[in-house]
Amino acid sequence: MRIYKKALLPVYFKASGVASGVKKNGKPDLGLFYSHLPAKAACLFTTNKIQAAPIRINKSRLKKNKDYRLVIVNSGNANCFTGSRGVKDAEALVSEVSRVMKISKEKILAASTGIIGRPLPVFKIKKAIPALVRGLSEEGIEKAKKAIMTTDTFDKEITVSFDVNGREISICGVAKGAGMIAPDMATMLCFILTDADIAQDALDKALKSSADNSFNCITVDGCMSTNDTVILLANGAAGNDPIRPGANKHFADFAGALNLVCLELAKMIVKDAEGATKFIRIRVSGAGNFTEAKKAALAIANSSLFKTAVYGRNPNFGRIVQAVGASGVDVKEEELKIKVSPLNRKNVDICVSVGTGKSGAVIYTSDLTPEYIRINAEYT
Amino acid sequence: MRIYKKALLPVYFKASGVASGVKKNGKPDLGLFYSHLPAKAACLFTTNKIQAAPIRINKSRLKKNKDYRLVIVNSGNANCFTGSRGVKDAEALVSEVSRVMKISKEKILAASTGIIGRPLPVFKIKKAIPALVRGLSEEGIEKAKKAIMTTDTFDKEITVSFDVNGREISICGVAKGAGMIAPDMATMLCFILTDADIAQDALDKALKSSADNSFNCITVDGCMSTNDTVILLANGAAGNDPIRPGANKHFADFAGALNLVCLELAKMIVKDAEGATKFIRIRVSGAGNFTEAKKAALAIANSSLFKTAVYGRNPNFGRIVQAVGASGVDVKEEELKIKVSPLNRKNVDICVSVGTGKSGAVIYTSDLTPEYIRINAEYT
Repeated sequence: MRIYKKALLPVYFKASGVASGVKKNGKPDLGLFYSHLPAKAACLFTTNKIQAAPIRINKSRLKKNKDYRLVIVNSGNANCFTGSRGVKDAEALVSEVSRVMKISKEKILAASTGIIGRPLPVFKIKKAIPALVRGLSEEGIEKAKKAIMTTDTFDKEITVSFDVNGREISICGVAKGAGMIAPDMATMLCFILTDADIAQDALDKALKSSADNSFNCITVDGCMSTNDTVILLANGAAGNDPIRPGANKHFADFAGALNLVCLELAKMIVKDAEGATKFIRIRVSGAGNFTEAKKAALAIANSSLFKTAVYGRNPNFGRIVQAVGASGVDVKEEELKIKVSPLNRKNVDICVSVGTGKSGAVIYTSDLTPEYIRINAEYT
Repeated sequence: MRIYKKALLPVYFKASGVASGVKKNGKPDLGLFYSHLPAKAACLFTTNKIQAAPIRINKSRLKKNKDYRLVIVNSGNANCFTGSRGVKDAEALVSEVSRVMKISKEKILAASTGIIGRPLPVFKIKKAIPALVRGLSEEGIEKAKKAIMTTDTFDKEITVSFDVNGREISICGVAKGAGMIAPDMATMLCFILTDADIAQDALDKALKSSADNSFNCITVDGCMSTNDTVILLANGAAGNDPIRPGANKHFADFAGALNLVCLELAKMIVKDAEGATKFIRIRVSGAGNFTEAKKAALAIANSSLFKTAVYGRNPNFGRIVQAVGASGVDVKEEELKIKVSPLNRKNVDICVSVGTGKSGAVIYTSDLTPEYIRINAEYT
């Protein structure tokens, strides 16, 4: 397996990004991901009960259609809590891309991120679509990955490649994160493109398990977004023997590579958490089962008191005790063991054993800082 | 009903407070509440699975004993996560007070607040007990209420009085709060003293319902403490006809007065939240039932994004939408209504109707500020 810390588009994919004017600072805010061949799609969306309009239109497409060619994304406006008008607006953008590119609307997915509750400036975005389409190229990924960002401070990208029957398969992922990050699924958008030839059920299964071990194991502020979206497109251009699900080497290789892409992107999101100065790994062991272990780890990760203590380099392990006890998981005081790595480093490791079983879980999070508050007090 | 914004001890109660040296700044850190007559006790403790040593010894007493004379409290050290040594230490303090005052150990309750996980400096505290006992007086409440504080910036006290059969009953409460505040029960200690003559079941019932409407409806940082304690002593000195539970005027009067004491103290705790600049009331209506309404209100109140928005006077109602949707409660997007009062005032009112039923709940909270982080990054 070869790992590149860059987004390198797999065969027969193109991308593009432009500034449509939704973001007032003139930065790119409209992106397009394109597959020259019909691609299978596996998607995951937020479980928030309020869901953004693009998620609603994607869900209705995914019920009927089997292959996809395009994903259109905007940042700066979430098109969420915008009612039936929001849905009409999302469809209007899709229709415009469909018209310009002569690709059926049913083959186009959409995503948005940004401020909640404001009407989407459809007119501005529609005007930018012809330039967006003209920009489609292999290098266009450079602009597309910037067009999906909000408060991110660095690009989140990775490419992994590996061989199946002598054919090189590559998986390329880009993501945006920064704030409103919590399992299940952060305010994050993630687009993953692969040239693998893979059965639909294998694709779905691999994405679900990868997300459970990555995007669903990170938390910045415990706030689950209304817009979280992971879209994985597989266009089969690598020409490998089709990958099928189950206990076989090819599926394991694909799932392993996809897992690495998702986990690295998830960690980048935490590293770029709003205002963060620390990258914290919380490993809970000795729990009755995975769910209990994850619950305890999340309780620590979402504790404002714990997060400020790490920021202050203050080894106040009482706050870990408090959080574990409050989480409701089964814990024995006499067996509770806590190990904290030195807090003067950028990477902090917290190991907690709750002493009631043999299961474990790992959660990644960041510290809570005055800068987080400054960013979020001023945002909009 | 007469309301005094001062702690005025009811008949046959005394209190005291001294500096034992546990707090390094020389402020009072050891308090005593004393009833001259045997008093009934109603108590509520944290539901955190890790419980401080004094809570553990109180619970074992409450199973056997029916009347109480004393509560000893220290601040600066939580005596929590201190294992069997912690329990021995808590018993040692109780024994010393018992010896000096010649009151059976079984009639003494205890509470602690402060840093978790450090051994209690028993020697220092024991040395201070004779002076603590000598200080017992009606005016001693002035020092006792200060001895329970940690990061509090103002005294939390109230007295309410009312008549039953021409006898004046008074209920006096003092509390400490400030951080690690979340339902059920905050890092808070609260001591309530009344001279009412009241049946045990009436006392328990009144305290439970008052706490549900007050201490269990506030949240500062979503962190449920290991030490939360409410102790209510009723010594019967008022000589009223004994109050019995049920649908009668005397019980309703007592429960109403106690509710007012608890709610006012709970609000003071929120007003004195660490670093807070705002007092926020969140009223959720139109929910299927009280539990759902409270869950939605708490989800908003515990959202770091919401709290920083209020701090920044930034009417970003999308963060309320996000929090309600993520809370898991049943909500209809088309019916969701949000009203936010002007954010430039100290008191902020948030009204949310989720549109699925007729029930409501109110939660009180504070904003999240750089000062909260400064306090908690440095604490210890």
